[in-house]
Amino acid sequence: MQSKELGQALVEIIESRRSIRLFDKTPVPAEIIEKAFDLALLAPNSSNLQPWEFFWVREPKQKAKLVNACFSQAAAATAAELVVCIARTRTWKRNCEDMKRQLEQAEAQGTRVPKAAWLYYRKLAPFMYTQGPFGILGFVKRIFFFILGFWRPVSREPMGCSDMKIWATKTTALACENFMLSIRAFGFDTCPMEGIDSRRIKKLLSLPSDALVPMVIAIGKRRADGVTLPRIRGPRSWFIKTI
Amino acid sequence: MQSKELGQALVEIIESRRSIRLFDKTPVPAEIIEKAFDLALLAPNSSNLQPWEFFWVREPKQKAKLVNACFSQAAAATAAELVVCIARTRTWKRNCEDMKRQLEQAEAQGTRVPKAAWLYYRKLAPFMYTQGPFGILGFVKRIFFFILGFWRPVSREPMGCSDMKIWATKTTALACENFMLSIRAFGFDTCPMEGIDSRRIKKLLSLPSDALVPMVIAIGKRRADGVTLPRIRGPRSWFIKTI
Repeated sequence: MQSKELGQALVEIIESRRSIRLFDKTPVPAEIIEKAFDLALLAPNSSNLQPWEFFWVREPKQKAKLVNACFSQAAAATAAELVVCIARTRTWKRNCEDMKRQLEQAEAQGTRVPKAAWLYYRKLAPFMYTQGPFGILGFVKRIFFFILGFWRPVSREPMGCSDMKIWATKTTALACENFMLSIRAFGFDTCPMEGIDSRRIKKLLSLPSDALVPMVIAIGKRRADGVTLPRIRGPRSWFIKTI
Repeated sequence: MQSKELGQALVEIIESRRSIRLFDKTPVPAEIIEKAFDLALLAPNSSNLQPWEFFWVREPKQKAKLVNACFSQAAAATAAELVVCIARTRTWKRNCEDMKRQLEQAEAQGTRVPKAAWLYYRKLAPFMYTQGPFGILGFVKRIFFFILGFWRPVSREPMGCSDMKIWATKTTALACENFMLSIRAFGFDTCPMEGIDSRRIKKLLSLPSDALVPMVIAIGKRRADGVTLPRIRGPRSWFIKTI
């Protein structure tokens, strides 16, 4: 497609995406959800460490419990499908090892892997993301970089467990947006829900302690009355600044 | 456009988006950046409280300092344009007031505003997002909801200053993804950078203490050698689960 058409298409997708509070009973084809997952996983992500996970909850009893954990809000209760979006702070190590393996394979097949990439995944990433028990190492790194920072620019994050949560959630959100835009582009609708009981959801899905639940996404076909409020944004100058 | 075409367009946009490390010298038309900002601001966001801000740094001296604060990495140094993405934890109050004002205007013009929306912006949102000095109120709410949570599903976040950072960053990331996809759809490229000195950037832009810098986005036209690594993802089953 031409760049002009792609631009027009994306404008149409983004402008027509609304958070839908009421879905009709149209089922969403499984292949659309699957394709949206594929596109979600192509989002840019921090150091390619992929701290995201997506649980598509289809089993009726589990789904009913999930709706309950979303306070039975209309978007969840009427959704054809529900996806729990998860951010993990401790899977990066596994993914970093996998990254090294895949880079080795790529190199064996003739791809030139820059030295900087080897250095990054072998040394720098483990150093940057390891926070130690109770985040002690993160705290030490924070002080070290704070002092070093008087002389030269230094990384300030992620240093400690709290930063890791921000880090993992941020990357997961990038994928969530890809997912929601994809569902819209394929003719269906979504509602990202943060009014959720993350503790109950973690129990329901037997999630490990390092899992966060940034949002649950309801998916379905919008009812005519599915948009409950006009689209409102504050003055653009509050948010966009040019210097 | 037909839904099929929109789907194909988005697949093409997402699949062709790569994090570009080297840009050529092609300038990016200002109207493309502006339109991408417009589309960024249409991202879904938590309670419509819009905790995002985007600083487009054009002034050459400031831009040079920003490149330095991005460790002079090639993506920043060769970028035609640089945008600092900011998450704010304290602008929600102003935006909540604005939301009420705009809802009142909409109602005066004949739009039906559901009672739940009034309740939400008048009572519930201020209650949920106010964390008190040093997050003390957040801590109290956390305990209150923890106890209440034994009987029924309850909100677990955001309770406290640390949660507010996660909350604001998450929403900003949704807008960042809209922004990056827009730039791609309009025929240009981006590189989201987290290897940055957020402290120096905050000083450079005179940002208030509640501002976080989730990423800086480099924008330009990709050089033929601008993609430095093959696109690698871990096994899909690690990230997508169906139950």
